[in-house]
Amino acid sequence: MKYNTIDEANKAVIDKISGSAPFLVDVVPAKDKIKELNDGKVLLHAGPPIKWEEMTGPMQGSCIGAALFEGWVETEEEAVKMLENGEVTFIPCHHVNAVGPMGGITSANMPVFVVENRSEGNEAYCIMNEGIGKVLRFGAYSEEVINRLKWQKNILGPALSKALKLTEDGLNLNVMIAKAITMGDEFHQRNIAASLIFLKEISPYIVQVDMKENNLKDVIQFLADTDQFFLNIAMAAGKAVLDGARKIEEGTVVTAMCRNGKDFGIRISGMGDEWFTAPVNTPQGLFFTGYSQDDANPDIGDSAITETFGLGGMAMIAAPGVTRFVGAGGFNDALSTSNEMMEICIDQNSNFTIPTWDFQGACLGIDARKVVETGIEPVINTGIAHKHAGVGQVGAGTVRAPKECFEKALEAYATKLGLI
Amino acid sequence: MKYNTIDEANKAVIDKISGSAPFLVDVVPAKDKIKELNDGKVLLHAGPPIKWEEMTGPMQGSCIGAALFEGWVETEEEAVKMLENGEVTFIPCHHVNAVGPMGGITSANMPVFVVENRSEGNEAYCIMNEGIGKVLRFGAYSEEVINRLKWQKNILGPALSKALKLTEDGLNLNVMIAKAITMGDEFHQRNIAASLIFLKEISPYIVQVDMKENNLKDVIQFLADTDQFFLNIAMAAGKAVLDGARKIEEGTVVTAMCRNGKDFGIRISGMGDEWFTAPVNTPQGLFFTGYSQDDANPDIGDSAITETFGLGGMAMIAAPGVTRFVGAGGFNDALSTSNEMMEICIDQNSNFTIPTWDFQGACLGIDARKVVETGIEPVINTGIAHKHAGVGQVGAGTVRAPKECFEKALEAYATKLGLI
Repeated sequence: MKYNTIDEANKAVIDKISGSAPFLVDVVPAKDKIKELNDGKVLLHAGPPIKWEEMTGPMQGSCIGAALFEGWVETEEEAVKMLENGEVTFIPCHHVNAVGPMGGITSANMPVFVVENRSEGNEAYCIMNEGIGKVLRFGAYSEEVINRLKWQKNILGPALSKALKLTEDGLNLNVMIAKAITMGDEFHQRNIAASLIFLKEISPYIVQVDMKENNLKDVIQFLADTDQFFLNIAMAAGKAVLDGARKIEEGTVVTAMCRNGKDFGIRISGMGDEWFTAPVNTPQGLFFTGYSQDDANPDIGDSAITETFGLGGMAMIAAPGVTRFVGAGGFNDALSTSNEMMEICIDQNSNFTIPTWDFQGACLGIDARKVVETGIEPVINTGIAHKHAGVGQVGAGTVRAPKECFEKALEAYATKLGLI
Repeated sequence: MKYNTIDEANKAVIDKISGSAPFLVDVVPAKDKIKELNDGKVLLHAGPPIKWEEMTGPMQGSCIGAALFEGWVETEEEAVKMLENGEVTFIPCHHVNAVGPMGGITSANMPVFVVENRSEGNEAYCIMNEGIGKVLRFGAYSEEVINRLKWQKNILGPALSKALKLTEDGLNLNVMIAKAITMGDEFHQRNIAASLIFLKEISPYIVQVDMKENNLKDVIQFLADTDQFFLNIAMAAGKAVLDGARKIEEGTVVTAMCRNGKDFGIRISGMGDEWFTAPVNTPQGLFFTGYSQDDANPDIGDSAITETFGLGGMAMIAAPGVTRFVGAGGFNDALSTSNEMMEICIDQNSNFTIPTWDFQGACLGIDARKVVETGIEPVINTGIAHKHAGVGQVGAGTVRAPKECFEKALEAYATKLGLI
C-alpha cells in the first residue's frame, strides 16, 4: 500500500473525517438521486444484504407500508403476496449512497435529505423522520402512517426543498452538530437540541416559501414537535463524511456499522465495499408501558452510522439526559461509557467538543484492531422495534456491535496485505 | 410569628417556590400593566433606589435612550438636560412587579412580557431582550438602538401578544426551564436552548398571526437569531415566583438580589419590601476584543433574580459550556461552583433536575443565615457593561453578592423578632 504503516493510513482516513464539510442542500424524491429506484419495483433496506424471507417483522412491515405508499397494491394481503412472489428487488441503502433508520425501507417517491460533503464532493441521502410511535421505519403501516408519508412527499419535502434553496449555501451540519453537542444531544437517541437548531435555521426561510397558510402552520408545527427530526439528517451527514473518508482505501478504520435485523455488518477503510457480518444482538433497555424485552426485535437499522461517526453511544457523555431513557444509568455511567469507547478509537474530533467531557472532542475513528485487541465492542444507542410487523416502536436501549465482524474484517485485510 | 422556627418559615417559602406555576401569557406596553408609568415622565430602573446623579454610565445612557425612544426629546443633549433638571421620576422595577436587565430602564411604551404565577395569582413584567452588542440595557442609545426598540414596540411585541393569545393557556415556563436545563442553559449567561424552545413553542402560532410577510420573516429571524431572548422571560418568571413566595412574610430566604451599578440590594422573606444594600463589586471575566477590566462598569441589573431562583451562577453545573465564556474554568470548576452554592441553600428544586449534576435538582432557597455563617457569597453570572454611557456590552463574567447585605438583613430580622 502507499502508506508506510496501518497507523499512517488510518491517520489519512480520520483526517478526512475531521476535515469533512457536510452541508444539507436539498430534499428530493429518492428516485431523483438514486437511479436504481426507477428500474421497476425496488426497495432499499437497512443493513447488509438480506432477502425478504430472512427479514424480521418490522422490516417486512415497512415493506408492506412502502408498497401501499407507492400505490403498487391496495391492501396488506396484496402487498405480502407481491413481496413473497419476489416481485420486488431489494438493495441495501448503503450500496446507493443512502442510509435508512430501523427497517430503512426507502422507495422511489419518498423524500430524502441530500447531504453534500464539500471536502470530497460526494453526496449521501436519508429519508425524513416521521416522529415516534406508529411509523413506517419501526414496521407500522396503518392508514395514519401512509397518510403521513404522503404529506411528507406532497407538503413537507417540497417546502424544505424550497427553503433550503433560499439559504443559497445550504446548512452547515458540522456547525449545527457542534452546537447541539454542547446542548446534550448525542444524535442517535437524543436530537432535541439539533432539531431545534434546524428549526431556528430553516424557519426564517420556510416563512418565505409560497404555500397555503394551513400548510405553513402544519410544516412549522411538525418540525417544532418532532424531537428526533435531526436524526435522519445526522445519519446522512455521517454517511456522507464516512463515504468521503473511505476514499482512502487502506487502514482499519470502521467506515460503516449497520444492521438488518438478522446480521450486523461493518466495513473498514482498507476493504472498500465488502461487508463483514455476524448475527445481531438484541438491544437491552427500557420499554414503553405494556411492552417488555420479550417483544424486542433484534438490532436493526443504518442509524449506527452515527456511532461510526463518533456520536450516538460513543458520545454518551454528551447526553447525560439520555442515559436514563436508554436504561444506561446516571452521569458517571455516561462518562464511563465514553471513556471506554475512547479505548477503541484513534483520536478525538476537535470539531465536536463536549463540555461535559471537560471539552474533549468526540470519539474519532473506531479502529477495528483496537476492538479485537481490547475486546471492547462499540456501544450503540438505539430504538427498539416490536418483533412483529405493524406494531412500531416499543422502547429504547443500548446494544453492542459483535466482535466477530471486526475479527473477520481484520483477517480479510491481513490477507489482502499478504500478512497471513 | 406564626411558625415555630425560622426553618419552618423558610420551608413554607421554598414550598411556594417549588410549587409555583409561572406562565408567559402576554406582551403589552409597560404602561398597560404598570400604572405608575402613566403619571408624567417616569422611568423604571434596575436595583435598589438610586438618583440620576448617582447612576453609572450605562444606566445614564439607557435613560438617554429611553427619553429619545419615548419622544420626550430630539437629541442626546436635550435628554441629558431634562434628566439633570430632575424632570424624570425614577422608580425601581422591583417596586412595581417588574425586573429589568442591566440598566433595567423601562419606559411607558416599551413592550413587556407578562408572566402570571398561577399558584399565587400574581404577575411580573420584564422588557424584551434586544440581542447583544449595542443595546439599550447596556447603555447604548444610537439610532440603531432606538429603531430596534421601535420595531419591538410596533411589530415584535404585538405579534407575540397575538401568538400568545392563540395558545389559550400561555406557555408553561417551568416546563420550558426544566427542558432547557437539561440542554446546557443556566438562564443568565446561556439561554440558547430555552430561546430555541421558545421559538419551537411560539412559531406555530406566530405563523397564524395576520401580518405582512416581511414582518413575519423579520419576527421569526429575530427570534431565531437572539440566543439570549429567553433571559428576560426567565427574569420575569423568577420575579413572579419569588414575589409569590414572599407572601410568607417570615424567614431568612433571599427573595431578591439586584444591583443598580452603585449598590447591591437584597430582600429576605421575613423583611418584606425592605432593601439591604452594600456597595457592588465589579465583575471579573472575559472581555470582547479591544476591551479590558479597566472598562468594566460595576455590577448592574435585576438579572440576579435568576440566581435568587436557583439558576444563573447557582446552576453553573447545568451549563459547563458557559464556564469558559465567563472565564470560570472547565467542567470541574462548574461542578465546584454549584456544590459550593448548595452550602448556602436550603434544598434542591425537583422541578429542575440537572443531568450533569447526576440529576440533582437546582439550588432552592438561598438562606441569608447560611451566607453569613459560611462566608460563601452567592455567585452571579453576568454581562459586563462599559462604564461609559453609549458603548454597550464589553464582556461577561462572574461577580459575588456582598456578604454585608446578608448581615444587615439578618440583623434587621433578628430585631423584628425581638431577638436582639
